[in-house]
Formats: sequence, structure tokens, C-alpha cells
Amino acid sequence: MWVTPLIERKRDRGALTPDEWRELIAEYTAGRVPDYQVAALLMAVFLNGVEPAELAALTGAMLDSGERLRLDHLGMPIADKHSTGGVGDKVSLVLAPLVASCGVGVPMISGRGLGHTGGTLDKLEAIPGFRANLGAAEVQRQMERLGCVIMGQTEEVAPADRKLYALRDVTGTVESVPLIAASIMSKKLAEGIGGLVLDVKRGSGAFLPALDDGLELARTMIGIGEHYGCRTVALLTAMDRPLGRACGNALETEEAIAALRGEGPADLMEVTLALAAEMLLVAGVESDRSAARARLDDALGSGRAAERFRSVVATQGGNPAVVDDPAVLPQAQEVAVHMASRSGYVAAVDPRTVGRAIIAMGGGRRTMEDVIDPSVGFVITAKPGDRVKAGEALASIYARDTEGIRVGAAALERAIGIVEERPPAPLPLVSHRVTKTGVEEWADGRRGG
Amino acid sequence: MWVTPLIERKRDRGALTPDEWRELIAEYTAGRVPDYQVAALLMAVFLNGVEPAELAALTGAMLDSGERLRLDHLGMPIADKHSTGGVGDKVSLVLAPLVASCGVGVPMISGRGLGHTGGTLDKLEAIPGFRANLGAAEVQRQMERLGCVIMGQTEEVAPADRKLYALRDVTGTVESVPLIAASIMSKKLAEGIGGLVLDVKRGSGAFLPALDDGLELARTMIGIGEHYGCRTVALLTAMDRPLGRACGNALETEEAIAALRGEGPADLMEVTLALAAEMLLVAGVESDRSAARARLDDALGSGRAAERFRSVVATQGGNPAVVDDPAVLPQAQEVAVHMASRSGYVAAVDPRTVGRAIIAMGGGRRTMEDVIDPSVGFVITAKPGDRVKAGEALASIYARDTEGIRVGAAALERAIGIVEERPPAPLPLVSHRVTKTGVEEWADGRRGG
Repeated sequence: MWVTPLIERKRDRGALTPDEWRELIAEYTAGRVPDYQVAALLMAVFLNGVEPAELAALTGAMLDSGERLRLDHLGMPIADKHSTGGVGDKVSLVLAPLVASCGVGVPMISGRGLGHTGGTLDKLEAIPGFRANLGAAEVQRQMERLGCVIMGQTEEVAPADRKLYALRDVTGTVESVPLIAASIMSKKLAEGIGGLVLDVKRGSGAFLPALDDGLELARTMIGIGEHYGCRTVALLTAMDRPLGRACGNALETEEAIAALRGEGPADLMEVTLALAAEMLLVAGVESDRSAARARLDDALGSGRAAERFRSVVATQGGNPAVVDDPAVLPQAQEVAVHMASRSGYVAAVDPRTVGRAIIAMGGGRRTMEDVIDPSVGFVITAKPGDRVKAGEALASIYARDTEGIRVGAAALERAIGIVEERPPAPLPLVSHRVTKTGVEEWADGRRGG
Repeated sequence: MWVTPLIERKRDRGALTPDEWRELIAEYTAGRVPDYQVAALLMAVFLNGVEPAELAALTGAMLDSGERLRLDHLGMPIADKHSTGGVGDKVSLVLAPLVASCGVGVPMISGRGLGHTGGTLDKLEAIPGFRANLGAAEVQRQMERLGCVIMGQTEEVAPADRKLYALRDVTGTVESVPLIAASIMSKKLAEGIGGLVLDVKRGSGAFLPALDDGLELARTMIGIGEHYGCRTVALLTAMDRPLGRACGNALETEEAIAALRGEGPADLMEVTLALAAEMLLVAGVESDRSAARARLDDALGSGRAAERFRSVVATQGGNPAVVDDPAVLPQAQEVAVHMASRSGYVAAVDPRTVGRAIIAMGGGRRTMEDVIDPSVGFVITAKPGDRVKAGEALASIYARDTEGIRVGAAALERAIGIVEERPPAPLPLVSHRVTKTGVEEWADGRRGG
């Protein structure tokens, strides 16, 4: 395949045909197009963009490079959620079993910590014995039995995406809306889903902090999803402060289990239920949001959601006792309370500072080879807008040793800003809903929480 | 070396420091930075450009990747000319010995045919025995004896340029003004020159046809040259029709030898003398253009220029008898006259059609492995603006066989447009002179010729 003319065309703001994208990705995945040509093309895509038809073809080619889950025989609607990533975002742990307990199959392929954010698989692996790497037969069996699985990306899913992502990572072409969208959507469509809800984070702790960028990413992913017959909806949610109170793998898993009983922090419950309700709607098991919310509340209150989580954990090798006794999770050696150094209002809890501190304390990776200590992290009870007094507890710090406590305390001192005047309100927890027909402001987005 | 942040900075329209450029090029040349990272960076440079300080550092790093000629001990000024390439452009064959015979050392590194254009080395190699690949000791010796050498790029000169050029060729990053300028200037500065005259072609047969692009390339190369203390001047010359009458390797060498006696076609003499006079000026052996022209005319008329050419040919292994007897050059098997199919004015002689026809007839390369037949080509006597009658001879075709004659005739039929109305004048042979202080229109640029 002669790739240079295609690079030149994209460089000159032209478009590749769908057939050209398909052949290029297939040849690249097969090792017959060199990395250096694709690197030049990716930079041209980064700077010049792609047209919707090109992006659909690119995503389709990445999808077709691997296997797809076949779940039609389950006789249930299949849907999933994807988050663009944040700090304290343990929504997937709650939402997957919750939605599955409402009759929607959730074959969730999740990731690990990236940059300052945590990853669903790292959180679940805090549970002793839990395995995220499942074989195809295991996935099929578990979906048939439980309608829910939370797993890592297998070798068979979108190998072109893995190859392209590794190349983007070292060629300065990661933060491209169309390339991000194609990467996410090729993996999600490989799950064989008929509906998808996107949690697009905005605010200082999001990978794309600006609302406009978040909306563009949402619209781009929705365009791809709908092109492939997958009902796709996005909610724009707040990531100007951590979600919930727990930040750190084991601490977040514990908070997620509380949320599965309906007992999580208000902001976590609100975001989780908003996204879960959208899943019931795109899956078609409810046609009305208040009915969806009622069904979800029942699943939480009755214990069905927590029981589904217990079954998922047990089937994937984890200790199911975790659902009743958080003490089976790894416990930090050192715990300290972090207090307000002066009185005033909490102006901000900066998610990036919190996320990076967890990595520095050993709870995240600096390189792919690092082993995570799941016990470290924070429980931050202070929220932006709170009135606090000097000496009042703002957070607890969980660390391996006193040096970890010191690192965590210094980070919280920077992360939690205290000011004299009442600060402006933080972002609404849910601010916008995006569908293929357009963007609407979210009517019941609570502030604070 | 961590290259990704540099790629990201260039992608975001930032600048790399001179030290970063130097380290990057050194590490790339040493094989410690992979092609795919440099490919992404080159595309970002192509689309976002570079600042003058960056370009100087890039060029310097490419220059420093190899050896430089050391000619200070010759006790003469050293200068060279570079052309951006055209059809029928045999100026170097005339100019190098001519200028050397006027007391300026000319260590000319030349190239081969590229695209539709011919190359100086291919033309000289039409002379039986001529060798363009010389060792460093040979070059030194010949410069000491003759003050002139015309040779190919050696392994020792700017290896970073060779590696970058090969990568650009397959990643759609060839036609970038700064990258072209850095490539040319790194090789020219390696010759150890104190003055450089650039022949920047414009018009339909040039690689950059638009005047603005030619001016930008000229200014960019001048900026680099002056940065490194090399007096650099550019003339913008016409390439909307072939230069001179002969097109094809042996035919052009024959025409160049006539020009060395002052007996070449008027347009070839005009362009050659304009460039040669600029060389005497940048070399500092004359301070006034009319004195420079007089010295050049004397060198032509006295036979000194032709004798210097004879010595160069003989020293580089070629048959010196070529200077007196063109019959020592390879002769075409078939010759045919091409006539005007109707009466009117010659509107155009399209250089690209002529250049591509020579390749099709076996006189140029389609791949690097092709062997050239130096005998084929055209002598086109018709010039744009000429009044011609049906049946009048416009050109001679030189080919290997009757099929070659047929291919050549069909090409000339397309290349030489004949119209009823007097066409607009062609481009002035020399239209602009560019120096570090600015652009001036060329006062005595003749039209036609």
C-alpha cells in the first residue's frame, strides 16, 4: 500500500475515503505499514482533523481489527457506560451491577489509572483475589449467569487501537478529540452493545477541562455510536473537585459498596443514578426518567444491586465477604487527620493535586511496571463552599508510612484552598445532556453536594 | 532523550531551543531516536513552521553531523551556486569552471535528476569516463590544482540530512520551505564556502511555481546562510519554459560546452552570466556588477573557461576531447525533426511535459535503480512568443528507437502550444534579486530569449 499520497492529502486538509482508512488500518495492524508513516499521518490528523465519514471508517476499521462479543442469545438489552476519567470516580463499580440488576446486560471493558486519574480495574483489584483478565469463554459464561462483567481489554479486542495508542503515546498525538473518540468507541462497540452512556468530565480535573472541548468530544463519540446503530447519550459532569469522598483504590471500593446499598455520598449517588437512568433509557427497559430512577432506587434499597456485585466479585475470583466487611480490603499502616489551618470557606479541592499525591504515596503508577499499594489515599469530607473553622477535620490521610502521611498532608494543604469570602459555586454535578439531536442543559443538576 | 514533550511543543506552535534541536538531530543521527518520533515532529514542523533561530540550529546540527571541506589554505575566496532545479538547466556545467577561471574556488556538490528535472551529475556522466564520486583526498588535491570540482554528496557530508530526507520522502513532508532550506544549506555550508548564490526557479516547471513561495524559500535560505557567516544572494529566474535549447543529458553537456566558449543560446548565457557575476560579488573578487561581467566575458572569450572545464573533466576521469569534439558524447540512434502542425504563435513550451518525456524515453530514472540513456532528449529551438508557420521545424527529437521518437513527438505536440493571438510575454529570465536586506526587481531582466 502506497501511504505517502494519503499522508500528503491529510496534510493538505483533504479527506481519505472510507476504503482508504480501512485498508490503511488493516495493513498497519498486520505490520505492513511502518510506524513512521502512521506517526506522520496521526500528527496531520491531530492538526487538521477528520471528517465524520472518515472518523466512522477509522473507528470501524479499528473495531474490525479484532473480535466482538456476541451476546444476542442472552435475550436482554446490552448497554455500557464510559467515563473520560476523573479523581474519586468509582461510578463504574456501583453502576455496572446496579444496572445489570435492573435487567440490562453490562459487559464492561474498563481501564487502569491514567495520568492523575484512577482506574476501575485498579480499584476492583484492591479486593483480594479479584481477576480482571478473563478469557472469552469466561466472559460469555458470566454474562449468561449474571448479565455483568467488569474486565480488562483482551488481546482480541481492537488490536489496532492498542497499536495506535502506543504510537500516539510517544508521538505527541494523544489529546486529539477524533483520535480519543475513535479509540474509546472502537473498544466500546466491540462489546456488542446497543446503547452507550458517556460520562464526559469537565472542570480542572478533567483531561479536557473546557466545556466546549467536552461537548465536542461528546458529539464526536455520539456521531460514531449512532453511525454504528448504538444509541449513545452523554452527560457532562463535574470534575472540578473529586467525586464522592474516597480517593484511592481500596477506599474507593469501600465507598462504592456503601453506594450499592444507597448509602454513598450524595454527589456520588446523584451522578451514578443520573448515568444509570440514562442506561435504562438507551437500553429501552424504561422510557421515562422518573420510572428509571424508581427502578434503580428499588434495586439499591432491596439489596439486589449489592448482591449482584457480590456475585460478580465472587465469579471473578474476589473475596465476596468484602460486601459485608470492608476490613477484608488492604488497610493502610498509617492514618492521620488533616485539619483546616485557618477558618473560612473551602474554595476548591483540586482533583489533579489529589490524584498526583496518591501516585506519589504509592497508590498509582509512574511507569507501567510499578506495583500499586491499594491501601493509600484520602477520604476528603470537605467540599467546595463548605464553611470551616481552623482545626476542623477536612480529610483523613491513609499511607504506608509517616513519609506518606507527610506527602499526603502537604498535597492536601495545596489542594484544599480556604478563603475568607464565600467562593463562587462549583460546577453543577450534571450540567448538560447531549444526544444525536443536540445539547440540553440538565434541569436537576445539583450544585455542591 | 525524551522526545515526546518536544513534539507536543511544536504541535502546539511553540519553539524548541537551539540546544534541543542540536541534541535531537545528534541523537537521531546516532540511531537513538526512532523514525516515528521524528516523522511526527517533521509533520508538525511542516504544518506549524519553525522560527528563524530554530531553523539555524536545525541546519547547524545537520551540518555538524558530518565533515566539512577545509579550504582555507588555498588562499582564495570559496563560493558556490545552488539551483532549485529545472528543465534544460545546465548552468552549473558552465558556471563552475567559468567562475573558477576568474579566481574563485568552486567546490560544487551537485545532485541527480529529481522528479521532472535533470541533474548536473547525470549530465557530466554523459562524458565517457567521468567520475562524480570522489574521495576527500581527491577533492582537496583537485581544489588545490584547479580551484574547481563538481561531485556527488559523499557519505561524510551531512549524514543527518540523508537520513531526514529519506524519512521526509515517505512521510509527506518534502515540500516544506524550512525543511527544504535546511537540507540545501546544511550541504552547501559543508563545502566551507564564504559566499553562495541561489538560483530560485519560478513558473510552471519549478518545484515551487509561485513567486511568493520562491521568495519565501530564498529569504529562508539567505537567513540561514548569513547566520553562519556565508554571504548569500538569490536570483529568481524563469522556469516557465526550458532554459536554453537542449534538454537531455548528452545534449545539454554539448550545449554547456558551447556556452563555455560564449556560444550558447542567449537565455542560457544571460542566466549563467547573471549568476556568475553574483558569485564574483559575494566572493569579493569584484565589487561592481559590470566589472564582474567584463571579467566573465574575458574568461569566455579567451578560452580560459573552456580550458578549466577540460582540466576538471580530465582530472575526474572523463575524456577531455569532448571540449573540442561533441561526437565523443553518446549519440542517439534515431533523430527526427518535429514540425509545427499549424501556423501561429508559440504560447508555451511546458517544462514538465518535456522533462517527463525524457524520463519516458529512457533519459531519466523512474526508480533509483534505473540506468540512464544519456543520448536521448530534445533540442527545442522554438521559444514562447515566436511566430511559426505550419511545417516549420520547432525541435529535434533524439531517441533510442522509433518508439522513443513517437513518445517524444507526442510529448512535444502537448508541450508546445501554438495559438492564433500573440500570447502574453513569458516570465523575465531574471526577475528579482534577494539579499539579507530585502528584495529588488532585476533591472535588466530580458523577456523571451
